[in-house]
Amino acid sequence: MHRSVHHVREEAAHFVWDNAIEPAQEVDDGAVVELEVRDASGGQLDRDSTTDDVAALDFARVNPVTGPVFVAGARPGDVLAVEILELRPRDWGWTAIIPGFGLLTDEFPDPWLRISTVDAQARTVAFADGVTLPYEPFPGTIGVAPAEPGEHPMVPPSRWGGNLDVKHLRVGTTLLLPVGVEGALFSVGDTHAAMGDGEVCGTAVEAPMEIAVRLSVRRDVVLGAPQFHVPAGELARTEPGSYHVCTGVGPDLMEATRDATRAAVDHVASRYGRSREESYALLSVAADLRIHEVVDAPNWVVGCFVPEAIFDGEAGR
Amino acid sequence: MHRSVHHVREEAAHFVWDNAIEPAQEVDDGAVVELEVRDASGGQLDRDSTTDDVAALDFARVNPVTGPVFVAGARPGDVLAVEILELRPRDWGWTAIIPGFGLLTDEFPDPWLRISTVDAQARTVAFADGVTLPYEPFPGTIGVAPAEPGEHPMVPPSRWGGNLDVKHLRVGTTLLLPVGVEGALFSVGDTHAAMGDGEVCGTAVEAPMEIAVRLSVRRDVVLGAPQFHVPAGELARTEPGSYHVCTGVGPDLMEATRDATRAAVDHVASRYGRSREESYALLSVAADLRIHEVVDAPNWVVGCFVPEAIFDGEAGR
Repeated sequence: MHRSVHHVREEAAHFVWDNAIEPAQEVDDGAVVELEVRDASGGQLDRDSTTDDVAALDFARVNPVTGPVFVAGARPGDVLAVEILELRPRDWGWTAIIPGFGLLTDEFPDPWLRISTVDAQARTVAFADGVTLPYEPFPGTIGVAPAEPGEHPMVPPSRWGGNLDVKHLRVGTTLLLPVGVEGALFSVGDTHAAMGDGEVCGTAVEAPMEIAVRLSVRRDVVLGAPQFHVPAGELARTEPGSYHVCTGVGPDLMEATRDATRAAVDHVASRYGRSREESYALLSVAADLRIHEVVDAPNWVVGCFVPEAIFDGEAGR
Repeated sequence: MHRSVHHVREEAAHFVWDNAIEPAQEVDDGAVVELEVRDASGGQLDRDSTTDDVAALDFARVNPVTGPVFVAGARPGDVLAVEILELRPRDWGWTAIIPGFGLLTDEFPDPWLRISTVDAQARTVAFADGVTLPYEPFPGTIGVAPAEPGEHPMVPPSRWGGNLDVKHLRVGTTLLLPVGVEGALFSVGDTHAAMGDGEVCGTAVEAPMEIAVRLSVRRDVVLGAPQFHVPAGELARTEPGSYHVCTGVGPDLMEATRDATRAAVDHVASRYGRSREESYALLSVAADLRIHEVVDAPNWVVGCFVPEAIFDGEAGR
């Protein structure tokens, strides 16, 4: 698809951020790179997995990223522009409630697993009987090596990117990352077939993919943290339907977020006759958290937007 | 416009929530009510005001609401459904940076004021030379009397609604409020001609309006806090353009929100040659805060979405 494309295989995986990791590939400024990406379990879960496999997950092997890619000319203080060009999934993905992980951890202590069927052609993710999500793929983890030496864990994101879980990093979006070391040392992983802003249960529709990106060095902007550009029409395209919104109101922004999410779990469970676990996971892959106000001290308002078009028979509401 | 419409004049203003306040009007379940709403300064600011007037604001007179309206049949534990039917502004609105108020208070210590021209016909708000906002009116403060007796201040929202500042409460949206006392005692105020999710500088395009709502009692749902329903196509209609997004990444959700907003102030100031004060106010009236992830412990990611179509010459990006 591109004249000169570099390819990085999934064997070039690393499980920590560390600027001492040897590059898997060296490319010129402006190069297109295709990377094979393992799912966030690093292959521990597949189409036939069960909740027992979720309980047995080895966290030392989760969230592998593919790379790093050394971009010639990138120097500390520069910006690496990552244009998302293409994502190619297989035909499945997994969503789990993992004990100890997620926004409402205390209320969901048990492992839970759902395997979805992904149809990239039809742009659908069959999540459950009566629930079809739009297929909107993006990389959950995408970043560059930190300037700070040593090993840095993969789960928390940082100013260098990493596990940002920004669902808007879809095809057509350009992500800007601050460069911390020579060559930037770009890596990507944790591809998702669908997710809501917030990723409240801690997982998306986790799906191995190939991803193609263009990597360019920019020196016209200074960044303290990642920024990105969403092309015209992209939000409108992905938010066409109606929404039921549950708010959380209170003096702690995180608690208000939990309250909004908990109310949305109750709403989905009661309105659509779903278990609380399925409802929670559904919000993680489909609902969006927005901050309505953070100024009317001492109480803030957060909204959890539940899209209604994902439920059979609700499209016209 | 409606066969039998009740009208409540702006003189029926109150400055605290208190379930002992006498109803200004009593209506039946399902009635349409038109209410005259003063601007959030309670008339202290007008078209000719200056920053000196902002510095002299009397906070005992801010955020008046019009009401309360007693809805026959509404009992504690019920839900009051408020359908937003129509908003009619005058031809202007104000936006201020008020010392001590807002998300980045410490960084913006001085009063600042902008009078915008509101054109409801053209659906535009002329905010500055080269900056035109979509006119998207809604009530910032909308709620019912708290079950708890006594006077409750007007600025913080609560589970009974109040100063929610949810910009999505536009025409066609239905807000659901828990009923705390007999008759619900509904009031509304603080109408806005434009605002972003977050209202980061603390004010919107504050504009006096008349608002028409339909008030209905529902008993098919139990609410702990406000919920609302956004009709199909409404998000898509209002988010057609491109966005530049600045993220904040860190272990405190409020600080991550501040970081994202601060980066967006810098972006608008440098890219569009605006003062930091104007940039901050512009984000308050136009930019949206979204929570991208709240699960990748210990760091969360918040995005501040700056719409590009509001800037002359940027519509096609």
